[in-house]
Amino acid sequence: MGEKNYDLAIVGAGPAGMSAAINARARDKSVIIFNSGQVAKKIDWAPEINNYLGFSNVTGSELAQQFISHIEDLEVPIINEKVVKAYPMGEKVMITTNGENYAAKKLILAIGVVQEAKITGEAKFLGKGISYCATCDGKLYKDKDVLVISDSNHHEDEANFLADICKNIYYVPQYDKIKNLDERIEVVKGEVEEITGDDLANRVQLSSGEYDVDGIFILRETVPPTEIVPGLELDGEYIAVNRKFETSIESVYAAGDCIGRPLQIGKAVGEGQVAALNALKKLDQ
Amino acid sequence: MGEKNYDLAIVGAGPAGMSAAINARARDKSVIIFNSGQVAKKIDWAPEINNYLGFSNVTGSELAQQFISHIEDLEVPIINEKVVKAYPMGEKVMITTNGENYAAKKLILAIGVVQEAKITGEAKFLGKGISYCATCDGKLYKDKDVLVISDSNHHEDEANFLADICKNIYYVPQYDKIKNLDERIEVVKGEVEEITGDDLANRVQLSSGEYDVDGIFILRETVPPTEIVPGLELDGEYIAVNRKFETSIESVYAAGDCIGRPLQIGKAVGEGQVAALNALKKLDQ
Ligand SMILES: Cc1cc2nc3c(=O)[nH]c(=O)nc-3n(C[C@H](O)[C@H](O)[C@H](O)COP(=O)(O)OP(=O)(O)OC[C@H]3O[C@@H](n4cnc5c(N)ncnc54)[C@H](O)[C@@H]3O)c2cc1C
Ligand SMILES: Cc1cc2nc3c(=O)[nH]c(=O)nc-3n(C[C@H](O)[C@H](O)[C@H](O)COP(=O)(O)OP(=O)(O)OC[C@H]3O[C@@H](n4cnc5c(N)ncnc54)[C@H](O)[C@@H]3O)c2cc1C
Repeated sequence: MGEKNYDLAIVGAGPAGMSAAINARARDKSVIIFNSGQVAKKIDWAPEINNYLGFSNVTGSELAQQFISHIEDLEVPIINEKVVKAYPMGEKVMITTNGENYAAKKLILAIGVVQEAKITGEAKFLGKGISYCATCDGKLYKDKDVLVISDSNHHEDEANFLADICKNIYYVPQYDKIKNLDERIEVVKGEVEEITGDDLANRVQLSSGEYDVDGIFILRETVPPTEIVPGLELDGEYIAVNRKFETSIESVYAAGDCIGRPLQIGKAVGEGQVAALNALKKLDQ
Repeated sequence: MGEKNYDLAIVGAGPAGMSAAINARARDKSVIIFNSGQVAKKIDWAPEINNYLGFSNVTGSELAQQFISHIEDLEVPIINEKVVKAYPMGEKVMITTNGENYAAKKLILAIGVVQEAKITGEAKFLGKGISYCATCDGKLYKDKDVLVISDSNHHEDEANFLADICKNIYYVPQYDKIKNLDERIEVVKGEVEEITGDDLANRVQLSSGEYDVDGIFILRETVPPTEIVPGLELDGEYIAVNRKFETSIESVYAAGDCIGRPLQIGKAVGEGQVAALNALKKLDQ
């Protein structure tokens, strides 16, 4: 694999992840951020923000721009890939995105509000016939039938990757306009009602009919955190952390909306900072 | 007393206290900050700050100015008085400064790095013949002898208040130049070595000699938190809080440097925000 070993990797370029990154750079550590889609997207949506100290009455997009400039000034690389798996291995955390493998000494999850498994049956079959990454797991289904549930046309390229590998591919868009889908893929319209199976998930019940397949891909902008980091403990719907922002998994920290309420920028910035400083302190020991 | 009953009172106008205040204003609550001396003084000292998200490479005084503008835009009153006592009474917290009395529904301590009782004997005689507020307790020593230990010429006015009340007043400056001391007060030079007494503190050992008095005043920019809020629990040298930033005392919260490391602006801002939102949520219930 020969991947570079960063001091710190961060999943998510919202305020929590960006604050963690600038604090690591301020201490001269090597750092990388992974972010699927638009950087600082969530703040960008806010019409007006007046409760982040130092910025009185800015629009969300003005504040997002200030955050991005800060990251750029400190030369933090932001990789536009979705992290689908991360696990500690010896002194490193191995990180798999929908494109590449990476390694870091410490990892911070700053993935925003946790997207739980939402489809009936999804949680039950996590890791058993359901995959969140077509480019990672596609080859397991060579010459087989798969169904892809996708919530945005950003994922069409990833689905296209399956066209060369699988036999029949059913694509169920949970959005309006298909943009760029390989013609070998069959588009199926309908609401997803349930995923079922015996040991492995192999049937999808749509409002428009039933599909028996060998594998099911769910493509969303994020992945349930327990799927990203196997064994990660939750506290209700949030990632469980202690006061040092350590999760239940060695070398993995979490900060921001993903660890609980209130869901606010100042809180995310403070937690990202402390998580980074705690993680890096461990490196220096 | 007829004092106004604020929704939220905050002790300290550093980043933690200012963040708490703007978050309360953003929710349309009435709020007041007490700060002894210069607002945002500690940040003002920092030559360069590059780890508070959104401000790349600013001087401490530039950042302090942005914080102060934000507070001014939201019309938060900052009272330049030192809080010397605060305790819950029924639905209110009663607050005494070196000048006035106030009341608020909730209180946040954002007093920065905790100044513990430092003089040998000081901790032992807290509340027993040692006072941190001449204007509050001066009248207890009518026609008696007192000794005043002071760490800055800011406190000379407060010491002068004793001149009309007490008999002999010995003033021990822990700084260089006296500016404006009443001539009835006798300046005594020397290092403070120990405070002793039987039940009550009544003797001060200086490097230059021994003073037997009826009362001892210690005037510093801040007051030990356990002296401000009687019964407040500490965790080592910091104020103990739970994850909601509640202290051991009903209706009293704490945030920022005073609750522990790392001592950083982003952390203080995040904690001030969450403490305020938690405190105010209780009001709405
Ligand atoms: C309309 C609106 C208005 C708001 N107004 C305010 C306000 O006025 N004041 C305030 O304080 N807060 C406000 N908020 C809340 C604020 O935006 C959030 O609290 C804040 O963005 C949380 O920061 P975060 O870094 O924890 O997560 P986010 O900002 O959500 O960032 C998480 C990032 O992680 C990425 N990600 C997730 N999973 C993966 C993965 N597997 N791989 C790679 N990347 C991934 C996401 O794409 C996203 O970019 C508002 C929110 C909204 C939606
Ligand atoms: C030289 C220097 C450089 C620094 N550089 C950085 C940096 O680059 N990045 C970073 O993140 N941090 C930096 N810091 C740390 C940062 O300044 C602190 O972490 C931050 O100011 C803490 O905020 P706070 O609100 O908790 O407390 P403070 O900023 O200390 O504010 C507390 C306030 O409470 C007031 N107060 C105390 N007791 C009372 C009382 N009884 N009544 C009324 N008022 C009271 C004080 O006068 C003070 O104004 C630096 C600090 C210093 C000294």
